[in-house]
Amino acid sequence: MNYTLELGIKAKNAEPSIAGASTKSKNNALAAISKALKENAALIISENAKDLQTAKENGMSEAMQDRLKLDEKRIEGMAKGVDELIAMNDPIGQVIDGFVRPNGLKITKTRVPLGVIGIIFESRPNVTVDAAALCLKAGNAVILKGGKEAIYSNICLGKIMREALEKTGLPADIIQVVENTSRETTNELMKLNGYVDVLIPRGSARLIQAVVTTATVPVIETGAGNCHVYIDKSADIDMAVNITDNSKTQRPSVCNAIESLLVHKDIADAFLPMIAERFKSHNVKIYGCDKTIEILGNSVEKATDTEYATEFNDYIIAVKVVDSIDEAISHIRKYSTRHSECIVTQSLDDARKFQHEVDAAAVYVNASTRFTDGGEFGYGAEIGISTQKLHARGPMGLSELTTVKYLIDGNGQIR
Amino acid sequence: MNYTLELGIKAKNAEPSIAGASTKSKNNALAAISKALKENAALIISENAKDLQTAKENGMSEAMQDRLKLDEKRIEGMAKGVDELIAMNDPIGQVIDGFVRPNGLKITKTRVPLGVIGIIFESRPNVTVDAAALCLKAGNAVILKGGKEAIYSNICLGKIMREALEKTGLPADIIQVVENTSRETTNELMKLNGYVDVLIPRGSARLIQAVVTTATVPVIETGAGNCHVYIDKSADIDMAVNITDNSKTQRPSVCNAIESLLVHKDIADAFLPMIAERFKSHNVKIYGCDKTIEILGNSVEKATDTEYATEFNDYIIAVKVVDSIDEAISHIRKYSTRHSECIVTQSLDDARKFQHEVDAAAVYVNASTRFTDGGEFGYGAEIGISTQKLHARGPMGLSELTTVKYLIDGNGQIR
Repeated sequence: MNYTLELGIKAKNAEPSIAGASTKSKNNALAAISKALKENAALIISENAKDLQTAKENGMSEAMQDRLKLDEKRIEGMAKGVDELIAMNDPIGQVIDGFVRPNGLKITKTRVPLGVIGIIFESRPNVTVDAAALCLKAGNAVILKGGKEAIYSNICLGKIMREALEKTGLPADIIQVVENTSRETTNELMKLNGYVDVLIPRGSARLIQAVVTTATVPVIETGAGNCHVYIDKSADIDMAVNITDNSKTQRPSVCNAIESLLVHKDIADAFLPMIAERFKSHNVKIYGCDKTIEILGNSVEKATDTEYATEFNDYIIAVKVVDSIDEAISHIRKYSTRHSECIVTQSLDDARKFQHEVDAAAVYVNASTRFTDGGEFGYGAEIGISTQKLHARGPMGLSELTTVKYLIDGNGQIR
Repeated sequence: MNYTLELGIKAKNAEPSIAGASTKSKNNALAAISKALKENAALIISENAKDLQTAKENGMSEAMQDRLKLDEKRIEGMAKGVDELIAMNDPIGQVIDGFVRPNGLKITKTRVPLGVIGIIFESRPNVTVDAAALCLKAGNAVILKGGKEAIYSNICLGKIMREALEKTGLPADIIQVVENTSRETTNELMKLNGYVDVLIPRGSARLIQAVVTTATVPVIETGAGNCHVYIDKSADIDMAVNITDNSKTQRPSVCNAIESLLVHKDIADAFLPMIAERFKSHNVKIYGCDKTIEILGNSVEKATDTEYATEFNDYIIAVKVVDSIDEAISHIRKYSTRHSECIVTQSLDDARKFQHEVDAAAVYVNASTRFTDGGEFGYGAEIGISTQKLHARGPMGLSELTTVKYLIDGNGQIR
């Protein structure tokens, strides 16, 4: 039988065991996984070393090698992440809505697992554990397809988790790691309708685009963040500097960091020199419009459409001076990936207008865009930030790994 | 410019006007549409006559011609459907969740429109009006792609609705009817990522499958219903007969009608002759397992896998006698399209077990499956019944045509 189909069949067969498992049973499994990870740290590190060896031979960059690397501390971190899920409320069984119809039918809308979730991701092997644990807590079976650069690590982590599951009396096939990393297998996984209920790609824009284009299984898109801060004419300038600096430089590599800064013309002369001074301490490279260059001088390079459209994920920013809040909103509409957008303002009207008219998962008034995060929202662990509109938008926690079922109780009603 | 892309650009340009429209403005537009439909009844009927003429020339079946036909009464019905939406609560702006974080950030999760919705449907021209009105009330722009057999009707209905929109000061392009019914245009529409936010196919299983396979835009699947009633050993027999009869024969052509009947062996001798008698009055053809044939005699044809897997949408049923509730649940797991499933029982344990273990949008205890319907659930008009697990499951009303946006209010918070 085809390898990918076999994975799908095994997952579907294991699905009822985890979907019907009690919270206690799921928490026992999570505890066993956490314990097994710590106990097998030496094995994980030695398997990970094989991946690192190949990476070195292939001339992988130091930064990428660092993402790939697992050490005692990172394994501790993964185990801790699993432990934290134990304390969280089980989303399954939650009653979302309930009512009695005039004919006496009692209708209850309850949360149930999605079924089988496929995760397609790139180099970080910690995703193998994070994603599996989240799916498990939400009652789902999971098929994990990581990158071939982390294959030894992923297989090892999968094996440890599967053995832990079996020890607590659950079928190992609730968690499966795809051992064949060929493009063919990945393509088959994306078309495994009837066996995989949803695919979640995690990684580069290129990966996500490939999954969206190829998959016939429903996909939840995560990730891309071309985010903006707009400094309104009425902004408190100190607050504007702090929010812009934090949104850009606190961790520039992540999706909720900003890439562009829009400044109202009436405040540009006062604000731009102050933020430029702050950026200097982080060596932030500035691209700007003509007006920005006029104010900040020739150290600023001319920004084109390309810069306004780029997610730098680096100490680089594109600046534009705008004539009005409407121009700012139009610019955002044109370039935003609808992830996180912010206005700094003291005007109630402008705050309301911005939040009403800007279309994004998270729209901020007077706060850093860096807060778009499952942990910061109080949702605990997250599987990603959805930038699409279907099913989930914004930080996706346990609830977003579920669907609903209507339970209808009658006493003989017919139409 | 490419015709399909042009439709997408027009829809995206019109989107902010309808997304930001007040409830009053949207209701005015609905009232204008309803009025215009009634005033233009003669025109609609004459354009519809052209479609009917072609249908006759092409030898379309009487039943299909009837689905295509619009008369005074049906136009009244469409207008009434639009009027009913006016009275319904606007889903946009609804606060779904809200909380204050320890750092003082106030986070509000609110309902916002999806954006641009593409509807791909078959012969019934009334879908043009029903779907457009629902999308409009939920603040969305809509692109309607109907079948070529109803093209004159659809273009005429589209034109009337667009003119009505303009009269109330909204852009006509909020509602667009695809005038080019070529397969190429349909395929392009399904790949219009960035312009169409979600596609909803309405029609045959074949149409839905084609959309799921081809589309790169996210799809909400609707429709297919291979539904079951299971008569448990403890069932009240009169109730079992009434529910089975109603679920099968009250309107056999729709998706929430049952296609198979499962009966516990301990009650089969008493129950099967009674339901067979009832079915006789509706000329229901029965396929059955060996045990069914043993009880009901040779008028019953032998059921195979094919019958158990078929959505007849007709006065036909497949019957199976099972040894246990577990066998019933396994059978349902194998053949169900996860739409609506029912157990008739007096046992609390069996009722709970069935609702817990059967995976479907709606799981009934002691009531007809025919209640899976937006109107019957009290949701008002519906755009379809979702049989997938992502975004929406079960009857999809106005809320299911929306997404969410997080509004975050701070006073200078940074990380």
